Amino acid sequence: MADTENTLSMDKIVSLAKRRGFIFQSSEIYGGLNGFWDYGPYGVRMKRAIEQLWWREMVETRDNVEGLDSTIICHPQVWKASGHLDQFSDDMCDCRDCKARHRVDMMEDPKVCSNCGSSNLTEPRAFNLMMKTFVGPVADDEHTAYLRAETCQPIFVDFHNVRIASRQKLPFGIAQIGKAFRNEINPRNFTFRSREFTQMEMEFFCEEADSMEWFDYWKEQRISYYRGKLGFGDDFMRIHEHDKLAHYAKAAIDIEVKFPFGWGELEGVHHRGVWDMSRHEEFSGKEQLYIDHDNHRKVMPTVIETSVGLDRTFLALLCKAYDEENLGEDKDGQPDIRTVLRFPAIIAPVQAAILPLSKKLSDNARELYNKLNRYFRCEFDVTGSIGKRYRRQDEIGTPYCVTFDFDSLEDKAVTVRHRDSMEQDRVAISELRDYLEKLID
Amino acid sequence: MADTENTLSMDKIVSLAKRRGFIFQSSEIYGGLNGFWDYGPYGVRMKRAIEQLWWREMVETRDNVEGLDSTIICHPQVWKASGHLDQFSDDMCDCRDCKARHRVDMMEDPKVCSNCGSSNLTEPRAFNLMMKTFVGPVADDEHTAYLRAETCQPIFVDFHNVRIASRQKLPFGIAQIGKAFRNEINPRNFTFRSREFTQMEMEFFCEEADSMEWFDYWKEQRISYYRGKLGFGDDFMRIHEHDKLAHYAKAAIDIEVKFPFGWGELEGVHHRGVWDMSRHEEFSGKEQLYIDHDNHRKVMPTVIETSVGLDRTFLALLCKAYDEENLGEDKDGQPDIRTVLRFPAIIAPVQAAILPLSKKLSDNARELYNKLNRYFRCEFDVTGSIGKRYRRQDEIGTPYCVTFDFDSLEDKAVTVRHRDSMEQDRVAISELRDYLEKLID
Repeated sequence: MADTENTLSMDKIVSLAKRRGFIFQSSEIYGGLNGFWDYGPYGVRMKRAIEQLWWREMVETRDNVEGLDSTIICHPQVWKASGHLDQFSDDMCDCRDCKARHRVDMMEDPKVCSNCGSSNLTEPRAFNLMMKTFVGPVADDEHTAYLRAETCQPIFVDFHNVRIASRQKLPFGIAQIGKAFRNEINPRNFTFRSREFTQMEMEFFCEEADSMEWFDYWKEQRISYYRGKLGFGDDFMRIHEHDKLAHYAKAAIDIEVKFPFGWGELEGVHHRGVWDMSRHEEFSGKEQLYIDHDNHRKVMPTVIETSVGLDRTFLALLCKAYDEENLGEDKDGQPDIRTVLRFPAIIAPVQAAILPLSKKLSDNARELYNKLNRYFRCEFDVTGSIGKRYRRQDEIGTPYCVTFDFDSLEDKAVTVRHRDSMEQDRVAISELRDYLEKLID
Repeated sequence: MADTENTLSMDKIVSLAKRRGFIFQSSEIYGGLNGFWDYGPYGVRMKRAIEQLWWREMVETRDNVEGLDSTIICHPQVWKASGHLDQFSDDMCDCRDCKARHRVDMMEDPKVCSNCGSSNLTEPRAFNLMMKTFVGPVADDEHTAYLRAETCQPIFVDFHNVRIASRQKLPFGIAQIGKAFRNEINPRNFTFRSREFTQMEMEFFCEEADSMEWFDYWKEQRISYYRGKLGFGDDFMRIHEHDKLAHYAKAAIDIEVKFPFGWGELEGVHHRGVWDMSRHEEFSGKEQLYIDHDNHRKVMPTVIETSVGLDRTFLALLCKAYDEENLGEDKDGQPDIRTVLRFPAIIAPVQAAILPLSKKLSDNARELYNKLNRYFRCEFDVTGSIGKRYRRQDEIGTPYCVTFDFDSLEDKAVTVRHRDSMEQDRVAISELRDYLEKLID
């Protein structure tokens, strides 16, 4: 999958991500931990922005979707009911010569070690991906619990508690954002396949008869979210329709985007039938039916799921945004290459940088910064030439640089420099908030 | 500690929290899991609001504090260095008669079982509170890792990565919000002592010579946060100065607030000396000194920590807010008791409820709701009499109810009803955003 050009490009992205404080290797001073990544200062700003955008889009602006924040460790029976304990596994085999471990379904030739070429491989064995721990004072089977492998199961388990407290009737959804854990055999492609990651999932509960209509609705909603809010055009995004469906499902699609290492799934929109609710009814022994008082009947809710990987969304945005623009020659006759992250303003870690042209203007510019920082993610930078500062902001994807110069003292206006076009507007300070709000939203 | 009145009061709070969707028992349909709690629809709104308030206060409005979001699972050596693997344990003993397990330091009489009165107890044994898991394909010692017991250690481990990427110089801080896990022997007092919880921690790195000045600064900042932003007055908050300090520490205080079950710690402001950074230098073998280029010397940063329990803050706000107000007699001559949560508006799950007086006004009121919902946490409610709707909002702590009535069509104004005083203002719709912004901030 990875040719030289792609590898190069991922290397550049990994390197920029570390250098500018987006993503670090977890526990790096201890040699790192394979499949675990930390978000640095700009990374956490952007991660929070993506979360907030999704939350706003999926919960805050919808009367028929409620939020939830459940624990990572759930009752182990939850994972028995969901099928994870019995079936959530990959087949793996070991090379007896070089000791490399492989996921069988990822091997080009399952008879030959892709690391050393040996055919001296062990028989494939099922390897469960759930991470286990022990709750209570003894580390034995009775006290074994699991870190959730997906955030959706607690949504099913809490369905009736949420429904009663929120006085919702079918159809309605429950959404949550949180960490999930999978003991991947081979974590790879930077943060794309990691062992600890954040999911943003929404489960929509409806009647079976309306379920395909809702499936189509959510599919359309989610695609236009990527297109409209995050700027994934048709060249960067494609829809993968599943040919094989789980026995309980009526339809399933994945929204995939282009990474330097190939196409990868960002989100699944899946019809899950009554599978989850029925299984939890069976395993808990508690009736999970919904009582339709208007029609005096009981129904098992059918579920449409929208499930996003937050870290993948982050990585996709980073990769799509990365650009090296050739601006001709610099003053020494060398090629002038500007590295720029063309992030949508809504998720950029810094939305507006406030730059005093001279240190003498720091106090005035800082006053403006304090005002704007209430409404946008701002940064104040006074070090280095204005050109250097622009480039520094380009490299972290800041869409607007606001320069406070000596004229600003007189005309009460500032220069707004646009990242992508590098064009500049003169804007009255009194109108700056409105000006930026219109551009950013 | 718990007398009848206190128990009653906690029971009421637990019951309201479940009924109105603030907090549910995790995995309830499976019998629950001791020490694990889920946040429901109103709970997650408020939890996010508390997080956002802290983040804004501690990171977004400060140039000298950077954010971080590190993984829950870190390299196991991190916990060797921090001392958690060797020392993070409680002494516990078992009653041989009734099988109850006790934390020795919590027993009134460590020779007698507080459950059954037997003195047939086992010798105290150290019980480590770290939760372990296995990363990689084999569940053995070599692959053992731990869920973090506190969010601060990854901050120390990532110090230089953050410093370099953010171009910060001493003194500066690094903050993060995230889950932590402790295998408490006896989780208790609702969410106060649970096994999975969220911390909000900031580690401030400075020179030893200035460290007491910074300690005093952060202590004052944090106390005024509780007083000013969250409304904890002197009758609800007290400062506990530690008499015994760790050998490396120069000072330590806890900010405690009053719960129905007694005083409990919300936050610690601790001088940690160079302990953490030195230990990570020793265990990683990587120099952790800060290079002071201006003075051509190297220093080991001294750390001042502010560490908050988010779930405790949530619970403290819930307990402090809870009130049953006697409004005299209702129309049937019965005592009219109004249950009201007197939350500060900044963290209330719903800040403004938009209520059409009649269903006929729904469309107009919804238009207003859609506008306000961009700026505040809003709810639209059309079911039941206006009086019932007010009471419902009181019970979840909504500070402002905005009633759209038939006059609103003519005078383009609405009635704003204040939760605490129950007084009402008539406010022009065009001024409503400003009006609420002033009250809420």
